[in-house]
Amino acid sequence: MSSPRELICELSRQFYAQGWVSGTGGGISIRDGDTLFMAPSGVQKERLQPSDIFEVNFNGDVTRTPSDGGKLTACAPLFMNVFNQRDAGAVIHSHSQSAVLATLIFDTEFRITEIEMLKGIRATGYHDELVVPIIENTAEESELAETMAAAIDSYPQSDAVLVRRHGVYVWGNDWIQAKTQAESYDYLFSMAVEMRKLGIL
Amino acid sequence: MSSPRELICELSRQFYAQGWVSGTGGGISIRDGDTLFMAPSGVQKERLQPSDIFEVNFNGDVTRTPSDGGKLTACAPLFMNVFNQRDAGAVIHSHSQSAVLATLIFDTEFRITEIEMLKGIRATGYHDELVVPIIENTAEESELAETMAAAIDSYPQSDAVLVRRHGVYVWGNDWIQAKTQAESYDYLFSMAVEMRKLGIL
Amino acid sequence: MSSPRELICELSRQFYAQGWVSGTGGGISIRDGDTLFMAPSGVQKERLQPSDIFEVNFNGDVTRTPSDGGKLTACAPLFMNVFNQRDAGAVIHSHSQSAVLATLIFDTEFRITEIEMLKGIRATGYHDELVVPIIENTAEESELAETMAAAIDSYPQSDAVLVRRHGVYVWGNDWIQAKTQAESYDYLFSMAVEMRKLGIL
Amino acid sequence: MSSPRELICELSRQFYAQGWVSGTGGGISIRDGDTLFMAPSGVQKERLQPSDIFEVNFNGDVTRTPSDGGKLTACAPLFMNVFNQRDAGAVIHSHSQSAVLATLIFDTEFRITEIEMLKGIRATGYHDELVVPIIENTAEESELAETMAAAIDSYPQSDAVLVRRHGVYVWGNDWIQAKTQAESYDYLFSMAVEMRKLGIL
Repeated sequence: MSSPRELICELSRQFYAQGWVSGTGGGISIRDGDTLFMAPSGVQKERLQPSDIFEVNFNGDVTRTPSDGGKLTACAPLFMNVFNQRDAGAVIHSHSQSAVLATLIFDTEFRITEIEMLKGIRATGYHDELVVPIIENTAEESELAETMAAAIDSYPQSDAVLVRRHGVYVWGNDWIQAKTQAESYDYLFSMAVEMRKLGIL
Repeated sequence: MSSPRELICELSRQFYAQGWVSGTGGGISIRDGDTLFMAPSGVQKERLQPSDIFEVNFNGDVTRTPSDGGKLTACAPLFMNVFNQRDAGAVIHSHSQSAVLATLIFDTEFRITEIEMLKGIRATGYHDELVVPIIENTAEESELAETMAAAIDSYPQSDAVLVRRHGVYVWGNDWIQAKTQAESYDYLFSMAVEMRKLGIL
Repeated sequence: MSSPRELICELSRQFYAQGWVSGTGGGISIRDGDTLFMAPSGVQKERLQPSDIFEVNFNGDVTRTPSDGGKLTACAPLFMNVFNQRDAGAVIHSHSQSAVLATLIFDTEFRITEIEMLKGIRATGYHDELVVPIIENTAEESELAETMAAAIDSYPQSDAVLVRRHGVYVWGNDWIQAKTQAESYDYLFSMAVEMRKLGIL
Repeated sequence: MSSPRELICELSRQFYAQGWVSGTGGGISIRDGDTLFMAPSGVQKERLQPSDIFEVNFNGDVTRTPSDGGKLTACAPLFMNVFNQRDAGAVIHSHSQSAVLATLIFDTEFRITEIEMLKGIRATGYHDELVVPIIENTAEESELAETMAAAIDSYPQSDAVLVRRHGVYVWGNDWIQAKTQAESYDYLFSMAVEMRKLGIL
């Protein structure tokens, strides 16, 4: 397996091609033991280099700063929530237009059932109803931490939190599950939007 | 020609880029003589390696397991149906959003006529009406086997079966025909969805 | 510059990625002096090799057959029309969904004006109205030859002919102009379709 | 860092893949000290070579012509406006369909608020309303110079000018900020168009 630093760069290029992290937004954090690897703030995600990545401990302290300096991603407190509350191995934050549009056609919860792709989500079957909490966005990303923590607590079945007019946070036990779930959630958000366009949702 | 193992990996990367196999869903099986090559269950399709591929015989028994282990794809019984009922050389299973949306705007059969791309489908001309059966989805992929077998029998003209809210199975005499037909069907599903959005179907 | 054989392969891969030649449909023919280079019929366009290409003279006779054999593309008579009637250097045939949808929202002529991309079309300014004839499709591609020839004669200003529910033929003095115009026409077809979806055309 | 010539070629390939510069339209200009690097007119943007690039000074005079000749891009006077009025380090001109469609659903100003991606734009917060002036297109690109200059003066907060039925100009202090902002604006244009399709804007 590639190192966490290399993986973050490789996955960031892939997410960029999918429209999840354009305009330097969004990102991914991967955990290796007690070390959390996170990208810097405001950098072009498709051009990240392994040496650009920060290391952070479980208290949220930066333990290794890139030699080029830079500022830790503003998503750090939100990534920390997930690592601490869910013992996750990786967290993905996407600005996918499908995720944002999904928050505009649902109220406080995104709900969908009976789409095969539901099986891409942990402990979810075809006949289950998937429920993803939608929290309100705030002026600063760090201000989201409290309501996001509450949503994670209130929805123990969900491995994702949607943020209204902003995007989505998705996680998993490791980067593979986080990525698989991120793809599955995104497919379901897109499907809901397309169904609404066709007048069948 | 590449080996079946290499081909499955190469085509899986291509299908991933087309949105057919995201979230580890979907896949392809290729036959070589009496051996059926199939991917493992729940793996990232764009990252498959030739050594990950299972070999299965015509009774559905696994004759070669990857050294890394893994579990055979849950699609295996459905792939077996096609190999046995149609003497196919390859079967593709796609979760394409166009296929799923097509099952939501048609009842028990997808029907379309007079689109040039119909000629990409075996024994189908421009003025013919293409009919693809739509079967209902089930909680487990293996439970689909019976209704899918019946649909394959009932629709001898069709080289595809749509599964409601799930996706499509497409096959051909060899991987090239299977892939060509999968692309043609997908184009037709997408065209029907776009025509519906424009109010002309 | 690459040889015509290499160019056809390279452009076919590019057109495949754009959705113009999926399901083995569509293609490109390039002229070099008195020799017309054309792809075989029914092959995967993104996997063409230089040795797969036919050579044809201005009478439409095949002067060089690939060593692997194969059958000349069914588009040959239509490509011949353009080479003979317009002294073109290259002809592109696309099954782009935007082109097909455009033929479904217009009657016998596609018309659009005041879009900057019009300038990508020969002798067309921003305030000009672009008119592209739409001919009816036929059961066999070769049967199109007569009505297409008539449309080319009747619309000397147009470097494209749309075929209802089928696609478009676009040409230019050389492969660069043909490709630039094909991209510009496709953009305009797509724009018209999106404008219709938004209720503003 | 790559040289400005190499960067222009690399970014042009990336913009081509995003649909911003098809049909030879659109482009990018990068400043290095007192030298402005610009592409030639009417060339395929995904095939640009470093040796194709012109050098221009702040008076708009060409100081270095490619050995192959060619004609300077018709955007040059518009790029000059931005370099002179805003001390920009790079200017991007895109024909993105989202930008053009955005000019068709807004009157003289594109306005959007409360989308997280707003933070990708200089000095813009989530609760701010982004305002981008829309100027009317003209027959010749050079005729746009005057109204564009006036719009740049009238909207000191904006780092973009939309041109009706044409596209958008976006700039930044350097190529990275210009590109980040171009991606952010394009995302916002696309979001507005999708919201309109869903009947929620």
